[in-house]
Amino acid sequence: MKILVMKFGGTSVADLDRIRKVASIIENEYKNFKVIVVLSAMAGVTDNLQKLIDEVNYTNSPETDMVITSGEQVSVALLSMILNKKNIKSNPMLGWQIPIITDNSYGKAKILNILDKEIKKNLKEFDVVVVAGFQGISLEGKIASLGRGGSDTSAVAIAIALKAKRCDIYTDVEGVYSIDPKIDNSAIKIDKISYEEMLEMSSLGSRILQTRSVELAMKNNVNLQVLSSIVNSKGTMLVNEEKLIEKEIISGISYSKNESKITISGVPDQPGISATIFGILSKNNINVDMIVQNISQDGISANMTFTVQSNEVGIAMNLLEKSKLEINYKSITSDSNVAKVSVIGMGMKSQSGVAQKMFQTLADNKINILAISTSEIKISVLIEQKYTEKAIKSLHKEYKLSNKILN
Amino acid sequence: MKILVMKFGGTSVADLDRIRKVASIIENEYKNFKVIVVLSAMAGVTDNLQKLIDEVNYTNSPETDMVITSGEQVSVALLSMILNKKNIKSNPMLGWQIPIITDNSYGKAKILNILDKEIKKNLKEFDVVVVAGFQGISLEGKIASLGRGGSDTSAVAIAIALKAKRCDIYTDVEGVYSIDPKIDNSAIKIDKISYEEMLEMSSLGSRILQTRSVELAMKNNVNLQVLSSIVNSKGTMLVNEEKLIEKEIISGISYSKNESKITISGVPDQPGISATIFGILSKNNINVDMIVQNISQDGISANMTFTVQSNEVGIAMNLLEKSKLEINYKSITSDSNVAKVSVIGMGMKSQSGVAQKMFQTLADNKINILAISTSEIKISVLIEQKYTEKAIKSLHKEYKLSNKILN
Repeated sequence: MKILVMKFGGTSVADLDRIRKVASIIENEYKNFKVIVVLSAMAGVTDNLQKLIDEVNYTNSPETDMVITSGEQVSVALLSMILNKKNIKSNPMLGWQIPIITDNSYGKAKILNILDKEIKKNLKEFDVVVVAGFQGISLEGKIASLGRGGSDTSAVAIAIALKAKRCDIYTDVEGVYSIDPKIDNSAIKIDKISYEEMLEMSSLGSRILQTRSVELAMKNNVNLQVLSSIVNSKGTMLVNEEKLIEKEIISGISYSKNESKITISGVPDQPGISATIFGILSKNNINVDMIVQNISQDGISANMTFTVQSNEVGIAMNLLEKSKLEINYKSITSDSNVAKVSVIGMGMKSQSGVAQKMFQTLADNKINILAISTSEIKISVLIEQKYTEKAIKSLHKEYKLSNKILN
Repeated sequence: MKILVMKFGGTSVADLDRIRKVASIIENEYKNFKVIVVLSAMAGVTDNLQKLIDEVNYTNSPETDMVITSGEQVSVALLSMILNKKNIKSNPMLGWQIPIITDNSYGKAKILNILDKEIKKNLKEFDVVVVAGFQGISLEGKIASLGRGGSDTSAVAIAIALKAKRCDIYTDVEGVYSIDPKIDNSAIKIDKISYEEMLEMSSLGSRILQTRSVELAMKNNVNLQVLSSIVNSKGTMLVNEEKLIEKEIISGISYSKNESKITISGVPDQPGISATIFGILSKNNINVDMIVQNISQDGISANMTFTVQSNEVGIAMNLLEKSKLEINYKSITSDSNVAKVSVIGMGMKSQSGVAQKMFQTLADNKINILAISTSEIKISVLIEQKYTEKAIKSLHKEYKLSNKILN
């Protein structure tokens, strides 16, 4: 029994016409595979439910998850009806019916186990099983949601549990591009990308796939494909590093405008001070990304610059201002008009000069670098937000990514 | 553990403000009782879901029930959040979590059993358990809906299973009235009414309670009360006939505009012809209500007049026209401009002249009677729809129902 998992996001099931289009995509596959379809809620539905929850001012709990998961219940049943009308025998299943067992962390639950018995029984009886994404049942028997974008993770986890041949993630883009095609029309679609590169891409704001789903696919070697539910074309295949025959030095340029910079000036230059600052933040679940420490002019105090997610900068500033005496700093400022720009590529590991080229390109364009962070396959710089387009376009050109279209 | 079941319909939970009002009604009760609240979906939600289903052109199935029951999942969780915010410990439960076990008749499922173990465990841990009405889980493990108005039945069934002290049905009216107060402001609220009278009332269009819920309450002697979620006042108590000390001859006047009249003329006056006609209709699940048979002028053929629900008159006409040869009639007509008006009262059983007074009153008002049907506690007549108001107002006056307000 060859199994294919197909996942469609909210915009792909936005209304009945779009759901009918999804049904015809499935129609092309179900004769060659036993198909498991994973769906999100119809676009807009989850946002509206979230508004109700916000109005009550309630957070991650069994109650909020009961509300927020109701959208998928509608979309899976509607698709199943439309498939049955086409004589493609179909059955919808909710998280608790499979069951997809999660921990009790409501609002961001982790999948612990997927029992395959019921779903296998269904695959014998039906051509297509339509599974509600984003949801599971917790250890204490309550509905749990996997967090925003969790349907990707549902799809990958089901592909693993059912040993699927492939997991196709249908979105509103045609695949992963070397640069955002909305910004630079010389963008090229990447045929194959390693999980690691994709992880850097998706955590950096090329929000095509939920990060957890890519991590899960990588750990379990899932053949994961990103493709369009609108245009019928080949997408981007995610593969193991070893399967990439020719490793591009740079596969793509990514950016994020969701970070804010915090600078603490006049911090005593003594051991343990970083631990104090970042301890305060981590205790409050605030993630810090890029960190730069400079000795200040007087030689005895330092400046500390780092970035946090923009939606957490208010809380972070508040916590740090309350801890002024404890940290013993002179002043603190924050700035949200920044952007993080990154070049990503597996080949970077074995190639020198990549960072140098990046810094030179930015300098040539008179773009000041506010902070730098690097990993084995990524270099990120923080710049003023207004230079974002200029920076990524010139980098895209400099790394000769766009030339490939011509060759 | 004294248990109170409180049920709130869609208009009572239409928005967050109304849900907050419901929470404060519960606040007045939960110190004296362990409270089980049964909710409908927020007003309008189920209608919108039904529209989606209608667009796909699908009927009673696991899929349609999966869609249509998603509204209650939202309302119960929202109320539970609001109660918890008030420090009233609360937990929401869906049909499958209790479980409320039903048969497999999707769209109009019957409750087979309610397991009380989980709900009792919840009542120990929480002050209030909020149960999704209208839904259960079928024998094959799928979500099943109980049909429109099914939340009333959910509430009564839970009251029976948990041996509740009382079951309060909160609606947008203050109780059961002797006549529709919107039509006649001399209407009086009935303090106590027998289940039997209420059954006649609710099946006749005074659609305060789902008929099945009243039948269930009657069979199991549930103390059922109808009261308003808007105005704080005593409602109407449903009781056993024996508990009604003074039996009113007539307790109320009811009407329905949802019936249509079909007349078949020139039917051979021979045995078995009624069986043929009504056999055709019952085989197609069309309920026939009032039936009148007249011998026609020629003495050898008859006319047959009967009523069906207006939403089924099209199908009924179609079936009968296709069977013209089989039945061997001359002509057939239908008329939807009719109304059924009924007088209802337990005292009727032991009192003669009630029907005579009805017919005389209508004659005095020059209202022609098109058909008559009677039961032990009810007399119904079919009249032209345009006379509905005139008929019920004059009957209400004639039976001196409105005088009671003065005495």
